[in-house]
Amino acid sequence: MPPVSRRRITGFSNPTVKFLRSLRDKKHRRRAKRFLAEGLRLLTEARESGRLPDMLVMAEGREAHPLVDALERDVAAAGGEIVETSAEILAKITGKDNPQAIAGVFAEFDTTLAALDRDAAPIWLVAQALRDPGNLGTMLRTGDAVGAGGLILIDDCADPFGVEAVRASMGAVFTQAIAQARWEDFLPWLRGGPGQLVAASLRDAVPYRGAAYARPCFVLVGNESRGLPEAYEAECDLRVTMPMRGRADSLNAAVAGAVLAYEVLATLNG
Amino acid sequence: MPPVSRRRITGFSNPTVKFLRSLRDKKHRRRAKRFLAEGLRLLTEARESGRLPDMLVMAEGREAHPLVDALERDVAAAGGEIVETSAEILAKITGKDNPQAIAGVFAEFDTTLAALDRDAAPIWLVAQALRDPGNLGTMLRTGDAVGAGGLILIDDCADPFGVEAVRASMGAVFTQAIAQARWEDFLPWLRGGPGQLVAASLRDAVPYRGAAYARPCFVLVGNESRGLPEAYEAECDLRVTMPMRGRADSLNAAVAGAVLAYEVLATLNG
Repeated sequence: MPPVSRRRITGFSNPTVKFLRSLRDKKHRRRAKRFLAEGLRLLTEARESGRLPDMLVMAEGREAHPLVDALERDVAAAGGEIVETSAEILAKITGKDNPQAIAGVFAEFDTTLAALDRDAAPIWLVAQALRDPGNLGTMLRTGDAVGAGGLILIDDCADPFGVEAVRASMGAVFTQAIAQARWEDFLPWLRGGPGQLVAASLRDAVPYRGAAYARPCFVLVGNESRGLPEAYEAECDLRVTMPMRGRADSLNAAVAGAVLAYEVLATLNG
Repeated sequence: MPPVSRRRITGFSNPTVKFLRSLRDKKHRRRAKRFLAEGLRLLTEARESGRLPDMLVMAEGREAHPLVDALERDVAAAGGEIVETSAEILAKITGKDNPQAIAGVFAEFDTTLAALDRDAAPIWLVAQALRDPGNLGTMLRTGDAVGAGGLILIDDCADPFGVEAVRASMGAVFTQAIAQARWEDFLPWLRGGPGQLVAASLRDAVPYRGAAYARPCFVLVGNESRGLPEAYEAECDLRVTMPMRGRADSLNAAVAGAVLAYEVLATLNG
Protein backbone atom coordinates (compact mmCIF):
# COMPACT_ATOMS: atom_id res chain seq x y z
CA MET A 1 0.00 0.00 0.00
CA PRO A 2 1.13 3.60 -0.52
CA PRO A 3 2.60 5.40 2.49
CA VAL A 4 0.04 7.35 4.50
CA SER A 5 0.46 11.09 4.06
CA ARG A 6 0.93 13.16 7.17
CA ARG A 7 0.40 16.86 7.68
CA ARG A 8 3.12 18.48 9.68
CA ILE A 9 2.39 21.26 12.17
CA THR A 10 5.19 23.27 13.70
CA GLY A 11 3.76 26.38 15.35
CA PHE A 12 1.90 26.74 18.65
CA SER A 13 -0.34 29.31 17.03
CA ASN A 14 -1.42 26.98 14.24
CA PRO A 15 -5.24 26.89 14.02
CA THR A 16 -5.28 23.09 14.27
CA VAL A 17 -3.31 23.23 17.52
CA LYS A 18 -5.71 25.84 18.83
CA PHE A 19 -8.66 23.71 17.79
CA LEU A 20 -7.24 20.60 19.48
CA ARG A 21 -6.53 22.48 22.70
CA SER A 22 -10.01 23.98 22.65
CA LEU A 23 -11.50 20.47 22.83
CA ARG A 24 -10.47 20.27 26.48
CA ASP A 25 -13.29 22.73 27.07
CA LYS A 26 -16.89 21.58 27.05
CA LYS A 27 -18.23 24.68 25.32
CA HIS A 28 -15.87 24.18 22.40
CA ARG A 29 -16.60 20.45 22.22
CA ARG A 30 -20.31 21.22 21.94
CA ARG A 31 -19.73 23.78 19.23
CA ALA A 32 -17.43 21.51 17.21
CA LYS A 33 -19.40 18.36 18.02
CA ARG A 34 -16.02 16.73 18.43
CA PHE A 35 -14.09 15.24 21.36
CA LEU A 36 -10.58 14.11 22.10
CA ALA A 37 -9.48 10.61 23.10
CA GLU A 38 -5.90 9.99 24.13
CA GLY A 39 -3.66 6.97 24.26
CA LEU A 40 -3.02 4.03 22.00
CA ARG A 41 -5.15 1.70 24.09
CA LEU A 42 -8.22 3.92 23.85
CA LEU A 43 -7.73 4.62 20.15
CA THR A 44 -7.31 0.93 19.42
CA GLU A 45 -10.45 0.16 21.40
CA ALA A 46 -12.24 2.75 19.27
CA ARG A 47 -10.90 1.30 16.04
CA GLU A 48 -11.85 -2.25 17.00
CA SER A 49 -15.33 -0.98 17.83
CA GLY A 50 -15.61 0.57 14.38
CA ARG A 51 -15.07 4.17 15.47
CA LEU A 52 -12.33 6.07 13.71
CA PRO A 53 -11.12 9.58 14.49
CA ASP A 54 -11.44 12.38 11.93
CA MET A 55 -7.92 13.30 12.89
CA LEU A 56 -5.05 11.42 14.43
CA VAL A 57 -2.31 13.45 16.14
CA MET A 58 1.12 12.26 17.22
CA ALA A 59 4.67 13.50 17.71
CA GLU A 60 7.12 13.28 14.82
CA GLY A 61 9.68 10.59 15.44
CA ARG A 62 7.26 8.53 17.49
CA GLU A 63 8.42 4.93 17.80
CA ALA A 64 6.91 2.61 15.24
CA HIS A 65 4.12 0.38 16.55
CA PRO A 66 1.91 -2.03 14.60
CA LEU A 67 -1.22 -0.66 16.30
CA VAL A 68 -0.27 2.88 15.31
CA ASP A 69 0.33 1.72 11.74
CA ALA A 70 -3.08 0.07 11.70
CA LEU A 71 -4.73 3.23 13.04
CA GLU A 72 -2.98 5.45 10.50
CA ARG A 73 -3.94 3.18 7.64
CA ASP A 74 -7.59 2.96 8.66
CA VAL A 75 -7.94 6.67 9.41
CA ALA A 76 -6.38 7.57 6.05
CA ALA A 77 -8.54 5.02 4.21
CA ALA A 78 -11.65 6.55 5.80
CA GLY A 79 -10.64 10.01 4.60
CA GLY A 80 -9.33 11.21 7.95
CA GLU A 81 -6.24 13.25 8.54
CA ILE A 82 -2.92 12.33 10.16
CA VAL A 83 -1.19 15.19 11.90
CA GLU A 84 2.39 15.15 13.05
CA THR A 85 3.78 17.73 15.39
CA SER A 86 6.60 18.34 17.86
CA ALA A 87 6.69 16.68 21.26
CA GLU A 88 6.29 20.16 22.82
CA ILE A 89 3.15 20.98 20.89
CA LEU A 90 1.73 17.52 21.53
CA ALA A 91 2.31 18.05 25.26
CA LYS A 92 0.32 21.30 25.01
CA ILE A 93 -2.53 19.46 23.34
CA THR A 94 -2.70 16.47 25.65
CA GLY A 95 -1.58 18.26 28.80
CA LYS A 96 0.94 15.48 29.38
CA ASP A 97 4.64 15.41 28.76
CA ASN A 98 4.76 12.11 26.93
CA PRO A 99 6.31 12.02 23.45
CA GLN A 100 4.70 8.62 22.83
CA ALA A 101 1.28 10.19 23.31
CA ILE A 102 -1.23 9.86 20.52
CA ALA A 103 -4.63 11.48 20.32
CA GLY A 104 -7.65 11.28 18.09
CA VAL A 105 -10.49 13.67 17.36
CA PHE A 106 -13.85 11.92 17.20
CA ALA A 107 -17.28 13.08 16.15
CA GLU A 108 -19.67 13.11 19.10
CA PHE A 109 -22.38 10.47 18.91
CA ASP A 110 -26.11 10.90 18.84
CA THR A 111 -27.12 10.98 22.51
CA THR A 112 -30.87 11.23 22.14
CA LEU A 113 -33.05 8.64 23.86
CA ALA A 114 -34.67 7.95 20.51
CA ALA A 115 -31.39 6.47 19.30
CA LEU A 116 -31.42 3.75 22.00
CA ASP A 117 -32.68 0.28 21.28
CA ARG A 118 -33.75 -0.95 24.70
CA ASP A 119 -34.16 -4.50 23.43
CA ALA A 120 -30.50 -4.66 22.49
CA ALA A 121 -29.38 -5.47 26.04
CA PRO A 122 -30.75 -6.92 29.30
CA ILE A 123 -29.25 -4.16 31.47
CA TRP A 124 -28.94 -0.40 31.14
CA LEU A 125 -27.23 1.93 33.56
CA VAL A 126 -28.87 5.25 34.40
CA ALA A 127 -27.15 8.04 36.33
CA GLN A 128 -28.85 11.12 37.69
CA ALA A 129 -26.85 14.33 38.19
CA LEU A 130 -23.60 12.39 38.31
CA ARG A 131 -21.04 15.16 38.57
CA ASP A 132 -17.70 13.40 38.72
CA PRO A 133 -16.28 12.59 35.26
CA GLY A 134 -14.23 9.74 36.76
CA ASN A 135 -17.39 8.16 38.14
CA LEU A 136 -19.10 8.62 34.78
CA GLY A 137 -16.26 6.93 32.89
CA THR A 138 -16.15 4.16 35.49
CA MET A 139 -19.87 3.53 34.99
CA LEU A 140 -19.34 3.24 31.23
CA ARG A 141 -16.56 0.73 31.90
CA THR A 142 -18.77 -1.24 34.29
CA GLY A 143 -21.57 -1.18 31.73
CA ASP A 144 -19.25 -2.71 29.16
CA ALA A 145 -18.25 -5.42 31.66
CA VAL A 146 -21.80 -6.44 32.61
CA GLY A 147 -22.99 -6.39 29.01
CA ALA A 148 -25.16 -3.32 29.47
CA GLY A 149 -26.49 -1.56 26.41
CA GLY A 150 -25.34 1.84 27.55
CA LEU A 151 -25.52 4.66 30.04
CA ILE A 152 -28.39 7.11 30.25
CA LEU A 153 -27.45 10.43 31.83
CA ILE A 154 -30.32 12.21 33.56
CA ASP A 155 -30.39 15.92 34.41
CA ASP A 156 -27.05 17.73 34.80
CA CYS A 157 -24.31 15.15 34.61
CA ALA A 158 -20.62 15.48 33.85
CA ASP A 159 -19.82 15.52 30.14
CA PRO A 160 -19.28 11.96 28.84
CA PHE A 161 -17.04 13.40 26.11
CA GLY A 162 -14.69 15.18 28.50
CA VAL A 163 -11.09 13.95 28.53
CA GLU A 164 -11.32 12.57 32.08
CA ALA A 165 -14.56 10.65 31.51
CA VAL A 166 -13.25 9.24 28.23
CA ARG A 167 -10.04 8.14 29.96
CA ALA A 168 -11.82 6.54 32.94
CA SER A 169 -14.11 4.66 30.54
CA MET A 170 -11.04 2.80 29.25
CA GLY A 171 -12.60 2.79 25.82
CA ALA A 172 -16.14 1.92 26.87
CA VAL A 173 -17.22 5.35 25.61
CA PHE A 174 -16.88 3.71 22.17
CA THR A 175 -18.73 0.50 22.99
CA GLN A 176 -21.59 1.70 25.19
CA ALA A 177 -24.52 3.72 23.90
CA ILE A 178 -24.85 7.07 25.68
CA ALA A 179 -28.02 9.11 26.04
CA GLN A 180 -28.64 12.42 27.76
CA ALA A 181 -32.12 13.45 28.90
CA ARG A 182 -34.08 15.36 31.49
CA TRP A 183 -36.03 13.20 33.95
CA GLU A 184 -39.34 14.49 32.56
CA ASP A 185 -38.36 13.20 29.13
CA PHE A 186 -36.73 9.99 30.34
CA LEU A 187 -39.75 8.78 32.26
CA PRO A 188 -42.26 8.84 29.35
CA TRP A 189 -39.63 7.22 27.13
CA LEU A 190 -39.08 4.47 29.72
CA ARG A 191 -42.81 3.89 30.17
CA GLY A 192 -43.31 3.76 26.43
CA GLY A 193 -41.91 0.22 26.34
CA PRO A 194 -40.82 -2.66 28.53
CA GLY A 195 -38.35 -1.80 31.29
CA GLN A 196 -37.93 -2.14 35.03
CA LEU A 197 -36.50 0.86 36.86
CA VAL A 198 -34.41 -0.17 39.88
CA ALA A 199 -32.64 1.99 42.43
CA ALA A 200 -30.69 1.46 45.60
CA SER A 201 -32.69 3.13 48.32
CA LEU A 202 -33.26 3.17 52.05
CA ARG A 203 -36.99 3.81 51.69
CA ASP A 204 -39.50 1.00 51.27
CA ALA A 205 -36.85 -1.29 49.81
CA VAL A 206 -36.15 -5.03 49.61
CA PRO A 207 -32.72 -6.68 49.99
CA TYR A 208 -30.73 -6.34 46.78
CA ARG A 209 -29.84 -10.06 46.80
CA GLY A 210 -32.67 -12.16 45.47
CA ALA A 211 -34.78 -9.20 44.35
CA ALA A 212 -37.02 -9.80 41.33
CA TYR A 213 -34.97 -8.11 38.63
CA ALA A 214 -36.47 -8.26 35.14
CA ARG A 215 -35.10 -7.44 31.73
CA PRO A 216 -34.57 -4.89 30.38
CA CYS A 217 -33.47 -3.69 33.80
CA PHE A 218 -32.58 0.00 34.19
CA VAL A 219 -30.23 0.45 37.14
CA LEU A 220 -30.55 3.99 38.46
CA VAL A 221 -27.84 5.72 40.51
CA GLY A 222 -28.11 9.21 42.00
CA ASN A 223 -25.90 12.22 42.56
CA GLU A 224 -22.68 11.74 44.56
CA SER A 225 -23.66 13.89 47.51
CA ARG A 226 -27.43 14.13 47.45
CA GLY A 227 -28.40 10.72 46.11
CA LEU A 228 -31.66 10.44 44.18
CA PRO A 229 -34.52 12.89 44.67
CA GLU A 230 -37.32 11.23 46.64
CA ALA A 231 -39.77 11.73 43.78
CA TYR A 232 -37.43 9.83 41.42
CA GLU A 233 -37.12 6.96 43.88
CA ALA A 234 -40.89 6.84 44.14
CA GLU A 235 -41.12 6.23 40.39
CA CYS A 236 -38.92 3.13 40.58
CA ASP A 237 -40.47 -0.28 40.02
CA LEU A 238 -38.10 -1.80 42.54
CA ARG A 239 -36.14 -0.26 45.40
CA VAL A 240 -33.39 -2.36 46.87
CA THR A 241 -30.99 -1.97 49.81
CA MET A 242 -27.42 -3.08 50.05
CA PRO A 243 -25.93 -3.95 53.45
CA MET A 244 -24.25 -0.98 55.12
CA ARG A 245 -22.27 -2.33 58.03
CA GLY A 246 -20.27 0.75 58.83
CA ARG A 247 -20.82 4.25 60.08
CA ALA A 248 -21.66 5.67 56.67
CA ASP A 249 -24.90 4.87 54.91
CA SER A 250 -23.76 5.08 51.33
CA LEU A 251 -21.28 3.89 48.74
CA ASN A 252 -19.49 5.75 45.98
CA ALA A 253 -22.08 6.16 43.21
CA ALA A 254 -20.13 4.19 40.60
CA VAL A 255 -19.46 1.42 43.13
CA ALA A 256 -23.13 1.18 44.13
CA GLY A 257 -24.12 0.98 40.45
CA ALA A 258 -21.58 -1.78 39.83
CA VAL A 259 -22.52 -3.93 42.81
CA LEU A 260 -26.17 -3.64 41.81
CA ALA A 261 -25.50 -4.25 38.11
CA TYR A 262 -23.53 -7.43 38.85
CA GLU A 263 -26.38 -8.66 41.03
CA VAL A 264 -28.86 -7.97 38.22
CA LEU A 265 -26.61 -9.79 35.75
CA ALA A 266 -26.39 -12.84 38.03
CA THR A 267 -30.16 -12.89 38.55
CA LEU A 268 -31.06 -12.50 34.88
CA ASN A 269 -28.65 -15.32 34.00
CA GLY A 270 -29.50 -17.47 37.03
CA MET B 1 -19.43 26.04 80.02
CA PRO B 2 -16.87 28.76 79.34
CA PRO B 3 -16.54 29.99 75.76
CA VAL B 4 -13.92 28.17 73.70
CA SER B 5 -10.88 30.33 73.07
CA ARG B 6 -9.83 30.86 69.46
CA ARG B 7 -6.51 31.95 68.10
CA ARG B 8 -6.81 34.48 65.31
CA ILE B 9 -4.44 34.44 62.34
CA THR B 10 -4.40 37.30 59.90
CA GLY B 11 -1.27 37.05 57.73
CA PHE B 12 -0.57 34.76 54.78
CA SER B 13 3.02 34.45 56.00
CA ASN B 14 1.99 33.23 59.46
CA PRO B 15 3.86 30.00 60.27
CA THR B 16 0.61 28.16 61.04
CA VAL B 17 -0.76 29.04 57.60
CA LYS B 18 2.47 27.83 56.03
CA PHE B 19 2.29 24.64 58.06
CA LEU B 20 -1.32 23.99 57.05
CA ARG B 21 -0.59 24.59 53.39
CA SER B 22 2.45 22.31 53.58
CA LEU B 23 0.17 19.41 54.58
CA ARG B 24 -1.07 19.23 51.00
CA ASP B 25 2.35 17.79 50.22
CA LYS B 26 3.17 14.19 51.12
CA LYS B 27 6.75 14.91 52.16
CA HIS B 28 5.59 17.47 54.69
CA ARG B 29 2.82 15.22 55.96
CA ARG B 30 5.35 12.49 56.63
CA ARG B 31 7.68 14.85 58.44
CA ALA B 32 4.91 16.33 60.60
CA LYS B 33 3.07 13.01 60.96
CA ARG B 34 -0.07 15.04 60.45
CA PHE B 35 -2.76 15.23 57.77
CA LEU B 36 -5.60 17.52 56.81
CA ALA B 37 -9.27 16.61 56.61
CA GLU B 38 -11.76 19.10 55.25
CA GLY B 39 -15.47 19.61 55.57
CA LEU B 40 -17.95 19.42 58.42
CA ARG B 41 -19.19 16.01 57.37
CA LEU B 42 -15.72 14.45 57.50
CA LEU B 43 -14.80 16.18 60.74
CA THR B 44 -18.04 15.06 62.35
CA GLU B 45 -17.42 11.51 61.16
CA ALA B 46 -13.99 11.72 62.79
CA ARG B 47 -15.39 13.06 66.04
CA GLU B 48 -18.08 10.39 66.20
CA SER B 49 -15.38 7.79 65.62
CA GLY B 50 -13.39 9.15 68.54
CA ARG B 51 -10.77 10.96 66.46
CA LEU B 52 -10.26 14.62 67.21
CA PRO B 53 -7.99 17.02 65.35
CA ASP B 54 -5.06 18.70 67.09
CA MET B 55 -6.18 21.86 65.41
CA LEU B 56 -9.46 23.05 63.97
CA VAL B 57 -9.38 25.84 61.37
CA MET B 58 -12.28 27.94 60.12
CA ALA B 59 -13.07 31.39 58.78
CA GLU B 60 -14.05 34.15 61.19
CA GLY B 61 -17.72 34.94 60.94
CA ARG B 62 -18.57 31.40 59.92
CA GLU B 63 -22.27 30.68 60.38
CA ALA B 64 -23.09 29.01 63.69
CA HIS B 65 -23.79 25.31 63.46
CA PRO B 66 -24.43 22.84 66.29
CA LEU B 67 -21.95 20.34 64.80
CA VAL B 68 -19.26 23.02 64.66
CA ASP B 69 -20.00 23.95 68.28
CA ALA B 70 -19.67 20.30 69.28
CA LEU B 71 -16.38 19.99 67.44
CA GLU B 72 -14.96 23.15 68.96
CA ARG B 73 -15.97 22.06 72.44
CA ASP B 74 -14.48 18.58 72.09
CA VAL B 75 -11.27 19.77 70.46
CA ALA B 76 -10.75 22.39 73.17
CA ALA B 77 -11.54 19.88 75.93
CA ALA B 78 -8.95 17.51 74.50
CA GLY B 79 -6.32 20.27 74.57
CA GLY B 80 -6.48 21.02 70.85
CA GLU B 81 -6.38 24.43 69.27
CA ILE B 82 -9.09 26.40 67.47
CA VAL B 83 -7.79 28.72 64.78
CA GLU B 84 -9.82 31.44 63.13
CA THR B 85 -8.67 33.17 60.00
CA SER B 86 -9.94 35.18 57.04
CA ALA B 87 -11.93 33.60 54.24
CA GLU B 88 -9.02 34.42 51.89
CA ILE B 89 -6.43 32.62 54.00
CA LEU B 90 -8.77 29.68 54.53
CA ALA B 91 -9.18 29.43 50.76
CA LYS B 92 -5.38 29.27 50.44
CA ILE B 93 -5.26 26.45 52.95
CA THR B 94 -8.11 24.35 51.57
CA GLY B 95 -7.62 25.26 47.93
CA LYS B 96 -11.33 26.00 47.72
CA ASP B 97 -13.14 29.30 47.78
CA ASN B 98 -15.73 28.40 50.39
CA PRO B 99 -16.05 30.60 53.47
CA GLN B 100 -18.05 27.83 55.20
CA ALA B 101 -15.07 25.53 54.86
CA ILE B 102 -13.65 23.96 57.99
CA ALA B 103 -10.54 21.87 58.29
CA GLY B 104 -8.84 19.80 60.93
CA VAL B 105 -5.27 18.67 61.42
CA PHE B 106 -5.06 15.05 62.57
CA ALA B 107 -2.19 12.94 63.80
CA GLU B 108 -1.44 10.13 61.36
CA PHE B 109 -2.29 6.67 62.65
CA ASP B 110 -0.05 3.70 63.18
CA THR B 111 -0.05 1.89 59.82
CA THR B 112 2.10 -1.11 60.67
CA LEU B 113 0.71 -4.58 60.08
CA ALA B 114 1.46 -5.39 63.71
CA ALA B 115 -1.25 -2.93 64.74
CA LEU B 116 -3.98 -4.89 62.90
CA ASP B 117 -6.20 -7.36 64.72
CA ARG B 118 -7.24 -9.72 61.95
CA ASP B 119 -9.87 -11.33 64.15
CA ALA B 120 -11.67 -8.03 64.52
CA ALA B 121 -13.50 -8.39 61.18
CA PRO B 122 -14.55 -11.08 58.67
CA ILE B 123 -13.29 -9.13 55.64
CA TRP B 124 -10.17 -7.10 54.92
CA LEU B 125 -9.41 -5.22 51.73
CA VAL B 126 -5.91 -5.34 50.29
CA ALA B 127 -4.69 -3.12 47.46
CA GLN B 128 -1.42 -3.54 45.60
CA ALA B 129 0.25 -0.53 43.99
CA LEU B 130 -3.05 1.34 43.87
CA ARG B 131 -2.02 4.71 42.49
CA ASP B 132 -5.21 6.71 42.29
CA PRO B 133 -6.07 8.47 45.56
CA GLY B 134 -9.75 8.54 44.58
CA ASN B 135 -9.74 4.76 44.19
CA LEU B 136 -7.97 4.41 47.52
CA GLY B 137 -10.52 6.56 49.32
CA THR B 138 -13.35 4.73 47.57
CA MET B 139 -11.95 1.40 48.79
CA LEU B 140 -11.89 2.72 52.36
CA ARG B 141 -15.51 3.78 51.95
CA THR B 142 -16.47 0.37 50.56
CA GLY B 143 -14.60 -1.31 53.41
CA ASP B 144 -16.66 0.66 55.90
CA ALA B 145 -19.87 -0.37 54.09
CA VAL B 146 -19.12 -4.11 54.01
CA GLY B 147 -17.92 -4.15 57.60
CA ALA B 148 -14.29 -4.75 56.69
CA GLY B 149 -11.65 -4.26 59.34
CA GLY B 150 -9.51 -2.07 57.18
CA LEU B 151 -7.40 -1.59 54.08
CA ILE B 152 -3.90 -2.99 53.68
CA LEU B 153 -1.79 -1.11 51.14
CA ILE B 154 0.88 -3.23 49.48
CA ASP B 155 3.94 -1.81 47.69
CA ASP B 156 3.76 1.74 46.34
CA CYS B 157 0.22 2.96 46.76
CA ALA B 158 -1.21 6.46 46.83
CA ASP B 159 -1.00 8.13 50.22
CA PRO B 160 -4.10 7.34 52.31
CA PHE B 161 -3.57 10.63 54.18
CA GLY B 162 -3.59 12.80 51.07
CA VAL B 163 -6.45 15.29 50.81
CA GLU B 164 -8.06 13.54 47.83
CA ALA B 165 -8.00 10.06 49.39
CA VAL B 166 -9.35 11.42 52.68
CA ARG B 167 -12.14 13.20 50.82
CA ALA B 168 -13.08 10.17 48.69
CA SER B 169 -13.17 8.01 51.83
CA MET B 170 -16.11 10.13 53.07
CA GLY B 171 -14.79 9.70 56.59
CA ALA B 172 -13.93 6.00 56.37
CA VAL B 173 -10.27 6.98 56.83
CA PHE B 174 -11.30 7.45 60.48
CA THR B 175 -13.23 4.19 60.84
CA GLN B 176 -11.13 1.71 58.86
CA ALA B 177 -7.75 0.46 60.03
CA ILE B 178 -5.01 1.22 57.48
CA ALA B 179 -1.75 -0.65 57.11
CA GLN B 180 1.13 -0.16 54.68
CA ALA B 181 3.56 -2.95 53.87
CA ARG B 182 5.78 -4.47 51.21
CA TRP B 183 4.53 -7.74 49.74
CA GLU B 184 7.49 -9.61 51.25
CA ASP B 185 6.43 -8.43 54.70
CA PHE B 186 2.70 -8.82 54.14
CA LEU B 187 2.88 -12.46 53.11
CA PRO B 188 4.64 -13.80 56.24
CA TRP B 189 2.28 -11.70 58.38
CA LEU B 190 -0.74 -13.16 56.57
CA ARG B 191 0.55 -16.73 56.88
CA GLY B 192 1.27 -16.19 60.54
CA GLY B 193 -2.42 -16.59 61.35
CA PRO B 194 -5.78 -17.53 59.86
CA GLY B 195 -6.69 -15.79 56.63
CA GLN B 196 -7.78 -16.57 53.07
CA LEU B 197 -6.23 -14.46 50.32
CA VAL B 198 -8.61 -13.96 47.39
CA ALA B 199 -8.04 -12.15 44.12
CA ALA B 200 -9.98 -11.58 40.93
CA SER B 201 -7.97 -13.26 38.22
CA LEU B 202 -8.21 -14.71 34.75
CA ARG B 203 -5.76 -17.53 35.52
CA ASP B 204 -6.85 -20.82 37.04
CA ALA B 205 -9.90 -19.20 38.61
CA VAL B 206 -13.41 -20.22 39.67
CA PRO B 207 -16.58 -18.14 39.24
CA TYR B 208 -16.79 -15.44 41.89
CA ARG B 209 -20.40 -16.37 42.73
CA GLY B 210 -20.56 -19.38 44.97
CA ALA B 211 -16.82 -19.54 45.59
CA ALA B 212 -15.74 -20.93 48.97
CA TYR B 213 -14.91 -17.70 50.77
CA ALA B 214 -13.75 -18.12 54.37
CA ARG B 215 -13.18 -15.66 57.18
CA PRO B 216 -11.06 -13.72 57.70
CA CYS B 217 -11.13 -13.13 53.96
CA PHE B 218 -8.48 -10.82 52.48
CA VAL B 219 -9.75 -9.39 49.16
CA LEU B 220 -6.77 -8.41 47.03
CA VAL B 221 -6.96 -5.87 44.19
CA GLY B 222 -4.10 -4.93 41.89
CA ASN B 223 -2.72 -1.83 40.22
CA GLU B 224 -5.04 0.18 37.96
CA SER B 225 -3.18 -0.49 34.72
CA ARG B 226 -1.07 -3.59 35.29
CA GLY B 227 -3.29 -5.58 37.64
CA LEU B 228 -1.61 -7.97 40.06
CA PRO B 229 1.84 -9.45 39.39
CA GLU B 230 1.49 -13.09 38.39
CA ALA B 231 3.60 -14.18 41.37
CA TYR B 232 1.19 -12.44 43.74
CA GLU B 233 -1.81 -14.13 42.12
CA ALA B 234 -0.06 -17.46 42.50
CA GLU B 235 0.11 -16.93 46.26
CA CYS B 236 -3.64 -16.50 46.54
CA ASP B 237 -5.70 -19.22 48.21
CA LEU B 238 -8.58 -18.56 45.88
CA ARG B 239 -8.67 -16.97 42.43
CA VAL B 240 -12.08 -15.94 41.15
CA THR B 241 -13.41 -14.51 37.87
CA MET B 242 -16.17 -12.02 37.38
CA PRO B 243 -18.19 -12.04 34.16
CA MET B 244 -16.74 -9.71 31.52
CA ARG B 245 -19.35 -9.39 28.80
CA GLY B 246 -17.84 -6.53 26.92
CA ARG B 247 -14.75 -5.73 24.90
CA ALA B 248 -12.60 -4.91 27.90
CA ASP B 249 -11.41 -7.57 30.30
CA SER B 250 -11.23 -5.54 33.45
CA LEU B 251 -13.08 -3.28 35.83
CA ASN B 252 -11.96 -0.19 37.68
CA ALA B 253 -9.89 -1.47 40.63
CA ALA B 254 -12.14 -0.01 43.32
CA VAL B 255 -15.23 -1.35 41.54
CA ALA B 256 -13.75 -4.87 41.24
CA GLY B 257 -12.86 -4.83 44.93
CA ALA B 258 -16.37 -3.73 45.87
CA VAL B 259 -18.21 -6.30 43.74
CA LEU B 260 -16.00 -9.01 45.19
CA ALA B 261 -16.27 -7.74 48.78
CA TYR B 262 -20.07 -7.68 48.59
CA GLU B 263 -20.03 -11.24 47.29
CA VAL B 264 -17.77 -12.31 50.15
CA LEU B 265 -20.06 -10.56 52.64
CA ALA B 266 -23.13 -12.34 51.25
CA THR B 267 -21.36 -15.73 51.36
CA LEU B 268 -20.03 -15.34 54.88
CA ASN B 269 -23.47 -14.32 56.11
CA GLY B 270 -25.40 -16.81 53.96
